[in-house]
Amino acid sequence: MNDNTTAPGEARVHVSLGERSYDILIGPGLIASAGQQIAARLPGIRAAIVSDENVADLYLEKLGESLSRAGIESTSIVLPAGEKTKNFEQVIAVSEAVLAARLERGDAVIALGGGVVGDLSGFVAGIVRRGMNFVQIPTSLLAQVDSSVGGKTGINTSHGKNLIGVFHQPALVLADADVLDSLSGREFRAGYAEMAKYGLIDQPDFFAWLEKNWQQVFAGGAPRIHAIATSCQAKADVVAADEYEGGKRALLNLGHTFGHALEAATGYDSGRLVHGEGVAIGMVLAHEFSTRMNLASPDDAQRVAAHLRAVGLPTQLSDIEGTLPPPDILLEHIAQDKKVKRGKLTFILTRGIGQSFVADDVPISEVLGFLKEKYTQ
Amino acid sequence: MNDNTTAPGEARVHVSLGERSYDILIGPGLIASAGQQIAARLPGIRAAIVSDENVADLYLEKLGESLSRAGIESTSIVLPAGEKTKNFEQVIAVSEAVLAARLERGDAVIALGGGVVGDLSGFVAGIVRRGMNFVQIPTSLLAQVDSSVGGKTGINTSHGKNLIGVFHQPALVLADADVLDSLSGREFRAGYAEMAKYGLIDQPDFFAWLEKNWQQVFAGGAPRIHAIATSCQAKADVVAADEYEGGKRALLNLGHTFGHALEAATGYDSGRLVHGEGVAIGMVLAHEFSTRMNLASPDDAQRVAAHLRAVGLPTQLSDIEGTLPPPDILLEHIAQDKKVKRGKLTFILTRGIGQSFVADDVPISEVLGFLKEKYTQ
Repeated sequence: MNDNTTAPGEARVHVSLGERSYDILIGPGLIASAGQQIAARLPGIRAAIVSDENVADLYLEKLGESLSRAGIESTSIVLPAGEKTKNFEQVIAVSEAVLAARLERGDAVIALGGGVVGDLSGFVAGIVRRGMNFVQIPTSLLAQVDSSVGGKTGINTSHGKNLIGVFHQPALVLADADVLDSLSGREFRAGYAEMAKYGLIDQPDFFAWLEKNWQQVFAGGAPRIHAIATSCQAKADVVAADEYEGGKRALLNLGHTFGHALEAATGYDSGRLVHGEGVAIGMVLAHEFSTRMNLASPDDAQRVAAHLRAVGLPTQLSDIEGTLPPPDILLEHIAQDKKVKRGKLTFILTRGIGQSFVADDVPISEVLGFLKEKYTQ
Repeated sequence: MNDNTTAPGEARVHVSLGERSYDILIGPGLIASAGQQIAARLPGIRAAIVSDENVADLYLEKLGESLSRAGIESTSIVLPAGEKTKNFEQVIAVSEAVLAARLERGDAVIALGGGVVGDLSGFVAGIVRRGMNFVQIPTSLLAQVDSSVGGKTGINTSHGKNLIGVFHQPALVLADADVLDSLSGREFRAGYAEMAKYGLIDQPDFFAWLEKNWQQVFAGGAPRIHAIATSCQAKADVVAADEYEGGKRALLNLGHTFGHALEAATGYDSGRLVHGEGVAIGMVLAHEFSTRMNLASPDDAQRVAAHLRAVGLPTQLSDIEGTLPPPDILLEHIAQDKKVKRGKLTFILTRGIGQSFVADDVPISEVLGFLKEKYTQ
């Protein structure tokens, strides 16, 4: 297999970024063939696999063997699972381990895991020796359709999520569809929220397709691969148009300004709220807020909420377990989010399903008034 | 004053990097006019000034007032002086301070200091919010002619110097020639070594000019500004041709592979050896090693050593105070330097003054043999 063919049942998405272009392969059995795929693109390298305890138990041996068969010597670094791992201390530990293994600029850091592992190890790959090769093997649906594509890397600080990081594009993304069968329903749904997002941004037909076919996507097989590939292509198109988030790329934040604030407000406690769930509620809030601003019909907001509720995602504040901080504290979290320019609130709003846009000048009083309403529902 | 004029006695060097292009201004009084210069290029921003204790005492108030007069609100972060500050702990502290000041992506981190402050704060500017604006106000000669130009940022780890960092171009560099009068002779000479380097890389005429005019460069005035501007232009040309160090940019490492190893071998103890001194010895060693490899005439190595000795720089291992580790340990430091590709030693060698080139495949045994000889001289 070389980099111009796909195996049966496999899809390929090309991310066009000039010298930094790369392929995303989506299909079954890609962990087992990872060595071949990587060696074809990065001949002669050595590698450091970064994973977390849960994923390492399931797939680390298989990946190490695949690399070894392809002549790629590797070392592995296993981190605690969970969002709290995305911190500076782990960046230091992983960077030191990569340097201790004497990896050079042309060698690769391979992320084997979900968004936490991908974001953290991508950041490490971006800063060790001012940028090493990086390969993503995302093992959650969320990572396959979102975080592994586009080159955003980063960690959290006490001031908020993903406030420290770099843009560092991978050399290859391998989305192994088989691994999704080991996800819990809740994890799968969290990733599904990001797939739905691409429909809501600018692909109303894909959203309608999901409304009809979501059960098959959850069940697996060809419709699932189609949905993942469509999502990756949607993200790749946006990233190719705006690699460093100067404009259009901000659309990918649909639902994320509210979502990030909710994650912060729940102390990044995955027992209460995971990222995709925050995005699901955030997307509904973005549509409802757009309705309040007389931009969109209330029917669209209801349709979004109905679909996300049907697949089992939370869609409103009261779906979050426990007590939320008051609206002004939530607003504080929103204002600290990085999508703020010169003190004015930037939101992704919408004129309807598949008609989202960047609003640069949203009055803070309107957001506070809206949140206060939502707290009483 | 706008960004298309220069004041009397001022020089301007333009670094051509497409969207990331920027100006370097070299002249007197630039700290006092920094506010105007920055506001003209980055209207409406707020800023965090990063400095060290020594430089802050001399110039922080003046810079803060200049920013204030131009309507730029600023906060300042003052670090301990010295190479040991370039570590992860300070990156965390400065990043947290920038976030605590609620600076946004369009706001600026301003480095007011030498290479340590510039490298560290440039790295922070490169990773906070995945890249903020960055302004360099270099206050050492070394920083003015080298580290402030070209976008390399970074910190040290126990594995070596500058092994962690990013490429992050400044939006503006202000090299205030007045501040050089507060440097010690030793500091000025250390910067001078990097100026001489540009002559040795590919500008034999500039090296010959320095041989004749170095006393005037040390004395100040127009020849000094000419030498700084010539150096910045030389570096800008190399950087424009190879921003991410894929090829030609490696030439800037002339003298640095030996130099970095000597800095590591002396524990980064500036009492024993500062960076520019390591580079001075390194450049002489690079010429002598090139002679040993039958690439260059011994006359050239002698001419380089003679000139650097004339200005008061160290030129041989025995000029370093205290005991050096044995040659094989020095070789170990060389091998860990980042200019290593796939286990082969990469050196910048030369065919004579102004005729340097990248040698990708230098036999490790030759380097060890050469070092053993040098230890006995």
